[in-house]
Amino acid sequence: MGKSIQKWAKDCTLTIDYTKKIYEGKSEFQEIEIFDSETFGRFWTLDGILMTTEKDEFGYHDMIVHPSFATNPNIKKVLIIGGGDGGTAREVCRYPSVEQIDMVEIDGLVVELAKKYLKQTAVALNSDDKRLNVIIGDGLKFVKESADASYDLIIVDSTDPISVGEGLFTLDFYQNCFRVLNEEGILVNQHESPYFSHQREEMKKAHSKIKTMFPVSKVLQLHQPTYESGHWLLGFASKKYCPLSDHKPSEWEKFNLDTKYYNSDIHKAAFALPTFVKKELENC
Amino acid sequence: MGKSIQKWAKDCTLTIDYTKKIYEGKSEFQEIEIFDSETFGRFWTLDGILMTTEKDEFGYHDMIVHPSFATNPNIKKVLIIGGGDGGTAREVCRYPSVEQIDMVEIDGLVVELAKKYLKQTAVALNSDDKRLNVIIGDGLKFVKESADASYDLIIVDSTDPISVGEGLFTLDFYQNCFRVLNEEGILVNQHESPYFSHQREEMKKAHSKIKTMFPVSKVLQLHQPTYESGHWLLGFASKKYCPLSDHKPSEWEKFNLDTKYYNSDIHKAAFALPTFVKKELENC
Repeated sequence: MGKSIQKWAKDCTLTIDYTKKIYEGKSEFQEIEIFDSETFGRFWTLDGILMTTEKDEFGYHDMIVHPSFATNPNIKKVLIIGGGDGGTAREVCRYPSVEQIDMVEIDGLVVELAKKYLKQTAVALNSDDKRLNVIIGDGLKFVKESADASYDLIIVDSTDPISVGEGLFTLDFYQNCFRVLNEEGILVNQHESPYFSHQREEMKKAHSKIKTMFPVSKVLQLHQPTYESGHWLLGFASKKYCPLSDHKPSEWEKFNLDTKYYNSDIHKAAFALPTFVKKELENC
Repeated sequence: MGKSIQKWAKDCTLTIDYTKKIYEGKSEFQEIEIFDSETFGRFWTLDGILMTTEKDEFGYHDMIVHPSFATNPNIKKVLIIGGGDGGTAREVCRYPSVEQIDMVEIDGLVVELAKKYLKQTAVALNSDDKRLNVIIGDGLKFVKESADASYDLIIVDSTDPISVGEGLFTLDFYQNCFRVLNEEGILVNQHESPYFSHQREEMKKAHSKIKTMFPVSKVLQLHQPTYESGHWLLGFASKKYCPLSDHKPSEWEKFNLDTKYYNSDIHKAAFALPTFVKKELENC
């Protein structure tokens, strides 16, 4: 029994009482803790910051994956940067049309622990799906060294732009993503939250960089109650496809996937942002 | 200096550090406290439960008011049940086409304190707008005694269905609302959250009652970070108008209102619910 305290702002915290600490350790990059709780099920933190809970990880993982496939149902080669708990890979693996998934996670211990303790998100990591290549390495370096036009989709499922995740919010990284994507390529990335000022600044910094280089640069929102403010954003940038005018709901529905958050109505709806968020993104 | 602790679930709390307690007292109905804080500005609680903060009240008040006017721009007579801080009345008063606003709040002390301390939401209460009639009384009794077909719009801006707000979630109350609305009438009501189990049950109970009597019965969602889980719902029921097929964005835009959350894209988007919420509402 104890408390996991999430600092949302200097004067605001979300506290979850855990029933048991399952794991506590330190990798080369960060401190890792895994807990059990009654309401949120199993959850884990990196350097004390909550990553995913069993109760609500489905929203984030649905929305970081499915909108791309409903925009371009012919995605075959996918690169996931980060995503060590396996939740993003799990959702991508549900598409039989996908031929190759390279997942580059910097922290091998995260993957090892996910396979052992975070079985809900790690199903694909624990499977024998031959399409999934888990590479323990630096995502920044990986995209730098990747050949031009190698992927249809890059998903940046990173931590916040502090410490180990910082490089994944830089212009240099986004430029390499652009180069490594083919001419129909889509980049989806963790885009922080518009609510608290420090994250709003990171959201604007990320968006201002991406929108200078991609012809299509949108932002979608979702409810993710255990992330700061619960109002979470993902970037959706593309060289060709607009997630609204190129949305193909009937093609996506042929995949016949059972999803707990995503559906064809919410696909379009997620890109409709409150006025205060639109203004911040327009002016950055 | 102190802490306002919001119990979101038995093992989850949101804590806001306040810089000053402005008021503490007890009315006939409930304990009332008002605080100042750095991040959230001034905020207030009833029986310890957070009602509104200056930082994010705009989302809730935008979404409880504007979708009705973009569905039926000819609304003239409005009944607000609750809404003691004045935020809902403030938004309704922005429509010059509205002729009469009856606001029935059970707790006179709340209105008195709002006028004095919650000036951001209480602008209409402090104005000399002759259309606004503030009635201190029981909303339940008020609708029971109101004549048939008296209003175009009823907004139930209540607390949670515990203690003083409980009656505003009953079948009898909704039946009276139905009777008191004219044939084009719209009922908007506080609809709790789908995330934590106790509120999800209240959401289902409210929806199951309303959908049996109104030909149109929808639910919309919004981001309200300081309410439990930040994933908040409002009911939108109507005798005639569907907020989607009867949405009139160009007519609403003629009102030329500057809104921080609501816009014509988010109007439609708000009614697109995550699959897990849709399923709960369909099966109740």
